[in-house]
Amino acid sequence: MTSLAALKSVAAAVSERDMANAIRALAMDSVQKANSGHPGMPMGMADVATVLFSRFINIDPTAPDWPDRDRFVLSAGHGSMLQYALHYLLGYEDMPIEELQRFRQLGSRTAGHPEHGHALGIETTTGPLGQGISTAVGMALAERMLAARHGTDLVDHYTYVIAGDGCLQEGISHEAIDLAGHLKLSRLIVLWDDNAISIDGPTSLSTSMDQPTRFKAAGWLVQSVDGHDIEAVAAAIEAARQSDRPSLIACRTVIGKGAPNLGGSEKTHGAPLGDAEIAATRENIGWAYAPFEVPDEILSAWREIAVRGQAARRAWGQRLAASPQREAFERAIRGKLPDAVFEALGAFRKEHVEKATKVATRKASEMALAAINDANELTVGGSADLTHSNLTITKGMDRIVPGGYAGRYIHYGIREHGMAAAMNGIALHGGFVPYGGTFLCFADYARGAMRLSALMSQRVVYVMTHDSIGLGEDGPTHQPIEHLAMLRATPNLNVFRPADIIETAECWELALKSETRPSVLVLSRQNLPMQRQAHSDENRSSRGAYVLREPSAHRAVTLIATGSEVEIAIAAAERLETGHGIAAAIVSMPCWELFEEQNGDYRKSVLGSAPRVAVEAAARLGWDRWIGDTGAFVGMIGFGASAPAPDLYKHFDITPEAVAATALRLII
Amino acid sequence: MTSLAALKSVAAAVSERDMANAIRALAMDSVQKANSGHPGMPMGMADVATVLFSRFINIDPTAPDWPDRDRFVLSAGHGSMLQYALHYLLGYEDMPIEELQRFRQLGSRTAGHPEHGHALGIETTTGPLGQGISTAVGMALAERMLAARHGTDLVDHYTYVIAGDGCLQEGISHEAIDLAGHLKLSRLIVLWDDNAISIDGPTSLSTSMDQPTRFKAAGWLVQSVDGHDIEAVAAAIEAARQSDRPSLIACRTVIGKGAPNLGGSEKTHGAPLGDAEIAATRENIGWAYAPFEVPDEILSAWREIAVRGQAARRAWGQRLAASPQREAFERAIRGKLPDAVFEALGAFRKEHVEKATKVATRKASEMALAAINDANELTVGGSADLTHSNLTITKGMDRIVPGGYAGRYIHYGIREHGMAAAMNGIALHGGFVPYGGTFLCFADYARGAMRLSALMSQRVVYVMTHDSIGLGEDGPTHQPIEHLAMLRATPNLNVFRPADIIETAECWELALKSETRPSVLVLSRQNLPMQRQAHSDENRSSRGAYVLREPSAHRAVTLIATGSEVEIAIAAAERLETGHGIAAAIVSMPCWELFEEQNGDYRKSVLGSAPRVAVEAAARLGWDRWIGDTGAFVGMIGFGASAPAPDLYKHFDITPEAVAATALRLII
Repeated sequence: MTSLAALKSVAAAVSERDMANAIRALAMDSVQKANSGHPGMPMGMADVATVLFSRFINIDPTAPDWPDRDRFVLSAGHGSMLQYALHYLLGYEDMPIEELQRFRQLGSRTAGHPEHGHALGIETTTGPLGQGISTAVGMALAERMLAARHGTDLVDHYTYVIAGDGCLQEGISHEAIDLAGHLKLSRLIVLWDDNAISIDGPTSLSTSMDQPTRFKAAGWLVQSVDGHDIEAVAAAIEAARQSDRPSLIACRTVIGKGAPNLGGSEKTHGAPLGDAEIAATRENIGWAYAPFEVPDEILSAWREIAVRGQAARRAWGQRLAASPQREAFERAIRGKLPDAVFEALGAFRKEHVEKATKVATRKASEMALAAINDANELTVGGSADLTHSNLTITKGMDRIVPGGYAGRYIHYGIREHGMAAAMNGIALHGGFVPYGGTFLCFADYARGAMRLSALMSQRVVYVMTHDSIGLGEDGPTHQPIEHLAMLRATPNLNVFRPADIIETAECWELALKSETRPSVLVLSRQNLPMQRQAHSDENRSSRGAYVLREPSAHRAVTLIATGSEVEIAIAAAERLETGHGIAAAIVSMPCWELFEEQNGDYRKSVLGSAPRVAVEAAARLGWDRWIGDTGAFVGMIGFGASAPAPDLYKHFDITPEAVAATALRLII
Repeated sequence: MTSLAALKSVAAAVSERDMANAIRALAMDSVQKANSGHPGMPMGMADVATVLFSRFINIDPTAPDWPDRDRFVLSAGHGSMLQYALHYLLGYEDMPIEELQRFRQLGSRTAGHPEHGHALGIETTTGPLGQGISTAVGMALAERMLAARHGTDLVDHYTYVIAGDGCLQEGISHEAIDLAGHLKLSRLIVLWDDNAISIDGPTSLSTSMDQPTRFKAAGWLVQSVDGHDIEAVAAAIEAARQSDRPSLIACRTVIGKGAPNLGGSEKTHGAPLGDAEIAATRENIGWAYAPFEVPDEILSAWREIAVRGQAARRAWGQRLAASPQREAFERAIRGKLPDAVFEALGAFRKEHVEKATKVATRKASEMALAAINDANELTVGGSADLTHSNLTITKGMDRIVPGGYAGRYIHYGIREHGMAAAMNGIALHGGFVPYGGTFLCFADYARGAMRLSALMSQRVVYVMTHDSIGLGEDGPTHQPIEHLAMLRATPNLNVFRPADIIETAECWELALKSETRPSVLVLSRQNLPMQRQAHSDENRSSRGAYVLREPSAHRAVTLIATGSEVEIAIAAAERLETGHGIAAAIVSMPCWELFEEQNGDYRKSVLGSAPRVAVEAAARLGWDRWIGDTGAFVGMIGFGASAPAPDLYKHFDITPEAVAATALRLII
């Protein structure tokens, strides 16, 4: 590694405009070579990004996960070449020039949109618009919370976001900026690429929003600058850093800046410029170098930034080594929950098997959470304004309030999507294990960010109560039907639907241990009896499905159920036994995904060879996998209705009688 | 029906406060009797609603579908007792007092949240917060568009919305108010129940948003009034009606107004007040009547409103009868597309079978749309800023612009959720058949409103392109995996994934004819060959699935595919035939839902008795229904990746080779 002094002497003659032009050239050349991609944004925001990195951002490419680094989020993820160009210029070891030459090719690190985990230093996956800015709110919140716990000696960094018009038009941005403004997340600085161009053409085709006023209404500091005026951008960032509120810097830019004919047009947004325009751009910006060539002095100027970051990281390392907080801080960053959590959950299960506790699984979740939250400090809860319905707060959890971040409970507001994105940001930032609640039906609203939890392999726990027609009177708008299928079809997501208090505790344990996969806990509003006949140290839910009741006689039929319908299946089995002398096994299947991962022998032993009836108060889609050609399904065909829950179960024929009759039809 | 004069004389002595108290009493009594529901909002907004109806709204309860009625949308749908109380008081024939006494009971018209189609005069289904205000934007837009076509003699009404804090916190509200402000939808008037209470407690727990400033930033006229000051509310509504922009009236209210102990508290939001507080409220507001009793003079005052509406409706009927626009207007309101549309599509199919046209199905959709839009005037298109990717605009479609509503193409902006809700509003309003485009992956963003399209049985057509890894370089954030399962699991929604230009035209025909069910057209980015061997007058997609190729020999295996994977299945069949002498049938399955509706014999004849291999570049979930115990699936297991599409198909092993090898494993 070249020394700082040597680099400085080389770089002295290099202007930030030159440095920015390196980004422009790399972006247009990479998109051209790939014949796919978005040159307009990287070229338009090259100056802003250069100022941001050259003067402000503290990162160390040799330690991309250094906990106190500044976070950089490219919310306008289609401009991924901006990020890859930066990473090459800054010297990330996994981003040599060859990767830029393989932009958007199979196996390259330079995916179409920035993907967390796919290349070093990508803080979050972006592309679906609005996600980056909303995830950044979670990061900025986590920073303040971690600082409140461990001190600004160890935690003192900024979250910088580059966002486009699309990010600010998406609804999720409203949820994010309202939450950030409310909580006074002063370390959040959003640089808006105000180029007035969207894919269809000028943004005036579809919006007349006065964005600065909108952000002011949300309590943000707002500044407007010429995004190509280096000093103006720098001054605005400096003022933003001093603010006691989150900051928007509206950077007026020209999309495709530098391209003499296409600059300023939507034509530069999502297509290569073409050889002729690229040549003209080279001429126009005075870039005399070959494709993918960056002269040494400009590269050195960029690498100097990394050297500054390294120095900061080393100084931080010394503070950490000397800190009384060191052990606690490192534990938090590792994200490993103490054994005490799982011991507490084990004791919890034993206690409630013995007591045969009958509660709604949402209540069981609250009780389990009390044990979990008492036994660790990393879990941070919240709800999208349904705290006392989701039962997500436990005794002694202080609230996060504007300017006060020492608590561990977040009132996310009526913002399911914003909550999910913020939880992604909290998990990505590190130091916490976030969980948050809403009604299962409103997974619809949170979908965009929930998918990213899964794609980014983040341990985010969704507590989704009121999980079926069992919620009763609120009616079909609130009764999930297709939501289980939607979530189960999502890759890398565990969907847990526990049947009783014991399974609820087991599923919580599995969710907390699932460090690279988000979980959804699907919980009932209504009371459900405890179903276990004895305590076992083994977490029986861990295999996804298991035989809850094996009849003494040879199985004539297997009844498979999840959640609140396990009780119905058991009652059906009793009817079959006493009324018809038919032996029915009960399989509880709290997690399809984990069951699918078991070996074939185990799966066969659970499912058995007798005909199967599945019972779930939801859509059938997906169940044929488990019931097979000779099986049957008892569940919902259409939407629900508004009535007390017991009336609805009867009305929709999801009853022990119906299950028993279905079983009889199969086996007689 | 009592005469207007007689009613007036009775009602003269009745104040609007008395009329509002009738709402309060009915709301608290109904919630108490149901032991479930939300009294706080109806009681808080009773005064505002009374002013709105008594002085402004033109509706006729005896003709609830009168096209030129004012629209009333209760966006804060949990306050459904406000709407039911109004409907009883106004005299809707399906809302006698007995229905209020059966609030939230099975089979009653008084569902937990207002449901369109479930009781007369409910303009849209609400409950999921933010949907009402966003749907209302579509209604207000449709009103202007219909007026532009048929004149203000026939179309001249307002859309009034009551929205709560929750509606305004949800992200979708941002998309809606930005679009409404941009398009200057001056007939949209939103009355915000500014009670500063949400479910968790004071809204200050989670928001510091300056809502008036926010709405001003979006180009709205904003007024703030005491929501219990009858004259102030009236003056604000009058001013809003004169505005050239959409209006927000912030009505400062006390939640549960009238309840002496609980008023102003979140405790009145979602639970009965209890007998003691109800008695105290009666005392406090001077309501000396028994539960569900409304004295004649107050009832008469309310019924007079209906009489005013009837008069307006009759006058309108006379204008219609005399209008040269009558026929065209009535055709639009009926929503029946002319035969010419379907004749054009038939000719289109014949032409392209003969030409063997090979295009992406998104391009095929554009070509079909050109024929459709030329042959009718009711279809109105749009896209969430992906017009030239979704290919949703056709020649000669003028754009809707601020203040100019004569066009038929809407730039919805980067607002998938807002677009879907607006399309619901356009469909509910009547006069148009809306379709709108985005990428299939961003069905995630639109989910909340798409579900309501289905729940409300509205003919809304979603044009969702870039439907698999076949989109290539944009990578996993843009590549749908679980989305087909999510949509197929949704009740009352047809999901079409056509395989070529012919199926695309067939699916468009089915979508347009599906008057009580929304449709999703799932379309490829990449080119796909025409697969039919001859033209048939029959719409072969209409049965959901059909045998595209039957081998001359007895079927040894059946290959089932949808969309872009039909080409792969056919190539696999050719490999099996030429390489192994194995006879494979090809089943194309563009619509699961329609296939499920066929009789068992047809389904069996298509699926056959040979082993089946399904091919779809998406999640497996749901496919076991069609492949059975002996079948296999070739598709996606996890998320996609960024690379050119052909590389991805190879990488994920969705190839003719892989399908043929899978088939061989099954049958040998």
